[in-house]
Amino acid sequence: MSEPRPPEPRSGPPVTPSEVEGASAEHLNQRWAATLVGALVGGGVRHAVIAPGSRSTPLALAFADRPDVKCWSVIDERSAAFFALGLSKSTGTPAVVVCTSGTAGAHFLPAVMEAGEGGTPLVVLTADRPWELHGFGAPQTIAQVGMFGRYVRAAEALPTPDEEGLTHLAAVTSRLVHLAKSAPRGPVHLNVPFREPLAPVGGALVIDPPVTTFAPVTVTADLSVVNAAIASAKRGLIVCGPRERNDGFGEWVHALGARLGFPVIAEAASNARYGFPEAIGVVDTLLRNQRFAEAMKPDVVLRFGGGLTAKGPQAWLDACGARIFQFTDEGSPFDPNHRAEQLIPFSPSPRLGEGRGEGRASWRATWATAQDAVLAIDPGNELIEPLVARHFIAALPQGTPVFLSSSMPIRDVDAFAIRGQPLRVFTNRGVNGIDGITSTALGVAAGTGRPTALLIGDVALLHDLSGLLIARRHALSLTMVVVNNDGGGIFHFLPIATRTPHFEQLFGTPHGVDLAHAASLANATLHRPGDLAELGRTVASCLEGGLHLIEVRTSRIQNVDVHRALFAKLAEAVP
Amino acid sequence: MSEPRPPEPRSGPPVTPSEVEGASAEHLNQRWAATLVGALVGGGVRHAVIAPGSRSTPLALAFADRPDVKCWSVIDERSAAFFALGLSKSTGTPAVVVCTSGTAGAHFLPAVMEAGEGGTPLVVLTADRPWELHGFGAPQTIAQVGMFGRYVRAAEALPTPDEEGLTHLAAVTSRLVHLAKSAPRGPVHLNVPFREPLAPVGGALVIDPPVTTFAPVTVTADLSVVNAAIASAKRGLIVCGPRERNDGFGEWVHALGARLGFPVIAEAASNARYGFPEAIGVVDTLLRNQRFAEAMKPDVVLRFGGGLTAKGPQAWLDACGARIFQFTDEGSPFDPNHRAEQLIPFSPSPRLGEGRGEGRASWRATWATAQDAVLAIDPGNELIEPLVARHFIAALPQGTPVFLSSSMPIRDVDAFAIRGQPLRVFTNRGVNGIDGITSTALGVAAGTGRPTALLIGDVALLHDLSGLLIARRHALSLTMVVVNNDGGGIFHFLPIATRTPHFEQLFGTPHGVDLAHAASLANATLHRPGDLAELGRTVASCLEGGLHLIEVRTSRIQNVDVHRALFAKLAEAVP
Repeated sequence: MSEPRPPEPRSGPPVTPSEVEGASAEHLNQRWAATLVGALVGGGVRHAVIAPGSRSTPLALAFADRPDVKCWSVIDERSAAFFALGLSKSTGTPAVVVCTSGTAGAHFLPAVMEAGEGGTPLVVLTADRPWELHGFGAPQTIAQVGMFGRYVRAAEALPTPDEEGLTHLAAVTSRLVHLAKSAPRGPVHLNVPFREPLAPVGGALVIDPPVTTFAPVTVTADLSVVNAAIASAKRGLIVCGPRERNDGFGEWVHALGARLGFPVIAEAASNARYGFPEAIGVVDTLLRNQRFAEAMKPDVVLRFGGGLTAKGPQAWLDACGARIFQFTDEGSPFDPNHRAEQLIPFSPSPRLGEGRGEGRASWRATWATAQDAVLAIDPGNELIEPLVARHFIAALPQGTPVFLSSSMPIRDVDAFAIRGQPLRVFTNRGVNGIDGITSTALGVAAGTGRPTALLIGDVALLHDLSGLLIARRHALSLTMVVVNNDGGGIFHFLPIATRTPHFEQLFGTPHGVDLAHAASLANATLHRPGDLAELGRTVASCLEGGLHLIEVRTSRIQNVDVHRALFAKLAEAVP
Repeated sequence: MSEPRPPEPRSGPPVTPSEVEGASAEHLNQRWAATLVGALVGGGVRHAVIAPGSRSTPLALAFADRPDVKCWSVIDERSAAFFALGLSKSTGTPAVVVCTSGTAGAHFLPAVMEAGEGGTPLVVLTADRPWELHGFGAPQTIAQVGMFGRYVRAAEALPTPDEEGLTHLAAVTSRLVHLAKSAPRGPVHLNVPFREPLAPVGGALVIDPPVTTFAPVTVTADLSVVNAAIASAKRGLIVCGPRERNDGFGEWVHALGARLGFPVIAEAASNARYGFPEAIGVVDTLLRNQRFAEAMKPDVVLRFGGGLTAKGPQAWLDACGARIFQFTDEGSPFDPNHRAEQLIPFSPSPRLGEGRGEGRASWRATWATAQDAVLAIDPGNELIEPLVARHFIAALPQGTPVFLSSSMPIRDVDAFAIRGQPLRVFTNRGVNGIDGITSTALGVAAGTGRPTALLIGDVALLHDLSGLLIARRHALSLTMVVVNNDGGGIFHFLPIATRTPHFEQLFGTPHGVDLAHAASLANATLHRPGDLAELGRTVASCLEGGLHLIEVRTSRIQNVDVHRALFAKLAEAVP
């Protein structure tokens, strides 16, 4: 390590080139990059994920020179971006991801989309060749300006470094980080061209430009209508979809429910389920009991977070005829079925539902009693996917960061894993992709600094194989429980499963890969527990640290019947 | 397999819904997809690469129903797109790549860029959710229209299927395939929304809409200026950069050189080197001899194909003061340093350089003699990267399709592998990425139907790990020679190698992965030849069929000195 100059507090007029020690034309690239990075740090950036490349050299070194930024080197840009996404999710600060010119930045697009739809701040830096090398066939050169199109909140096409632009660079960069962190939060992009020479001529250079201050975005709403509806409600319901901000939402919403006499339905990814015994989690089961579904229709519903993962409860809500108020983080539109009476910008606050509702105790108790009846049923001890999900969650120690992959894992946890310690639950439910799951989970492990648990299917694992190499290089602690049914299990739940002779080729997609080799590749310890109890013990011990791949083999073919039978058995128990 | 209805020749008025057997509102999706696919087939499509997904069900089945389309199922969309790129490159017809909605299509972007810059026809189909599910938080939904921006030649945002649009759909699709195949060739995008139900209600459905005919694009140029320059040239030179069309270019350009008395410099990826003993290949070595470089400056240069991979010869050409005529495929701009007097649209044709040049025999012979002197030098038998490249090429049987990865492999082959059997050489030199190399090479293996050879570094291999799974699933024959120096060897050639204490962390990026596990994962046979002779024998025997990973360990640290010493030794021999 070089000896970076520690940042000094700075005030007064904007930095000018002559103020920078050792200023010279030779390392204009270096000063340009240090100014940009200084502004990012001023905006709260503490993690930089850097894919190796040459054109991005000034940026890579400017991050490495900072004592206050942790650098993560990741070979594959796609994994790098998802890893940065996980860092942002888990630290609440915008992580940066950096790459060289050409197709490199294109690999960021899936994670950029997820960040945009999921409301995760992310700063994307793509190095570029200068204008005079564009458009006439120079190598590794494409038109990068605006390459993320509408998928970023803001994009800036920087010029090549020049003396006159340094002050403006600091302000523009500061503004972009601000936008990434402001409602609606999301990804921003700076395209950063450099001319040669790219290597520095001097030692470490740290520049802290004055931080430009922007007025925070405030969200306000007239809550009189919703408060009036709450006051008049006879059968109010609170429904919490996926939401992963670490802002005390769980405590707040359960206090609200108790005060108003509204049951709180909290799905697995809501961060209002685990550690909250009053949370109603078995809603998919309850509503499969037709009598219950008919009898328990609400008249007022307060919804928080994203869309429900389970299709049944979502359809029941849409059709129940209640007045629905959708609270959305930062007011981004969320109401795909256009059922909400109001979309209300939201952050946990005590201003909601003043006054206490009357006569709602039995309504709330009925939900709790029904759930208790379902949870009293012994679901058996077979190593089937619903019970793998249940035992996985039950085995997690208090406060464990846990990532639930899209496709079946999030669904099984949501439907069957109701009870657990207080956890920090993460998902990619912005666009619901199975892409980049391992990388994002590793970003969570890096951002929380804690051994992290991941429940994932075999297809998602194979989709992000090079993401596994991140764990190896950076010695991150991740316990991956891989439910391996040799293909795309979720497709068996769709009508297509019985409607084409091409099902296995195009949807089932069996791959036959022995996951032992994936574990070896990543230097992960492989475990193959033989029953649910052993699975639970293995998960718990793996979470003491290190990289673990716990493989659970299940049957893709039997899985649909397994789900139906278990749902039926549990729904019968609903009083 | 179902029994698909074989396509029937059709003429007369455009197809209308009532003409389609079994037409009904229930399977409008199916008829829509079958019409679209029929138009693609009419445009020459014969390969469809399909990533599993639900929203894309009608498209996947429409391809599977066709007896005249080969379907390839690939889990990872990024690999799928590069695989399709390789199919297009090697078959000369536009391959199709298909995915579901959400981030899935975003993974196509790197290959779309490479297809655009490399002039490879490619048809990209992204399934989408219908308009009424957009913009309000429905799952797996992003704004997909125009998602590839300027990186596709054309894009069409289809409406959801309706009866009235069927005829228009056939014409629009036909037009897009035509654009993909026309100058400048490249990728096109159709965004294809579907409403539920997605599974078909009937059996296989094949529709062949009438093929809309478009006038072919013709390229013409006034060659009088270039022909006059050729006639007056005293020291003319032909320089062939990367070019992979299978159109007889090699034979044509060497006949031209012989007729005009112009030496033909042909780089490794020009498809005018191997099998052509008169090709000058050691140009980088020759020009490192200052005396030769000074004495042998040309006065007229005819350039074909893309930019030279080697920096030295490119700089020498730029500075030599000759009149330069750049022939570009389909007239797309190619002259990053703005040295060309004319950019001339090109296809191999006899119209160039009429009349025979006089007194050029000794000029041409001097080049040949110099090359012979270099090739007479014994470079030794150490297992070093330059000689791995040489022995790799030398071991390839006649007609072998060979893919050269970007970064060091293409450079080493270009500089040191001069002699070989006639080969079909493929590269991704559009944007020069190391991304998707394995997938593209597998696409070439699939497209040529022949055991294919690949020379690749360890970083590129690890970047596209999930691409390896394609070979496993589809039983493709690929012989991968992996030059493993545990990190990014090319960065050691850059100034940054000595200018930062962060070099290993950010550029060298050692990963420590045991490639035996990568081989096991893909079910590839691992070989570790101990010397160059064994490498050659192994390559030759592996090319009889199957999937092989031949690992050659080299030293990243010594590699720069190894190159310098060998170049110096060879350059000394230049007379």
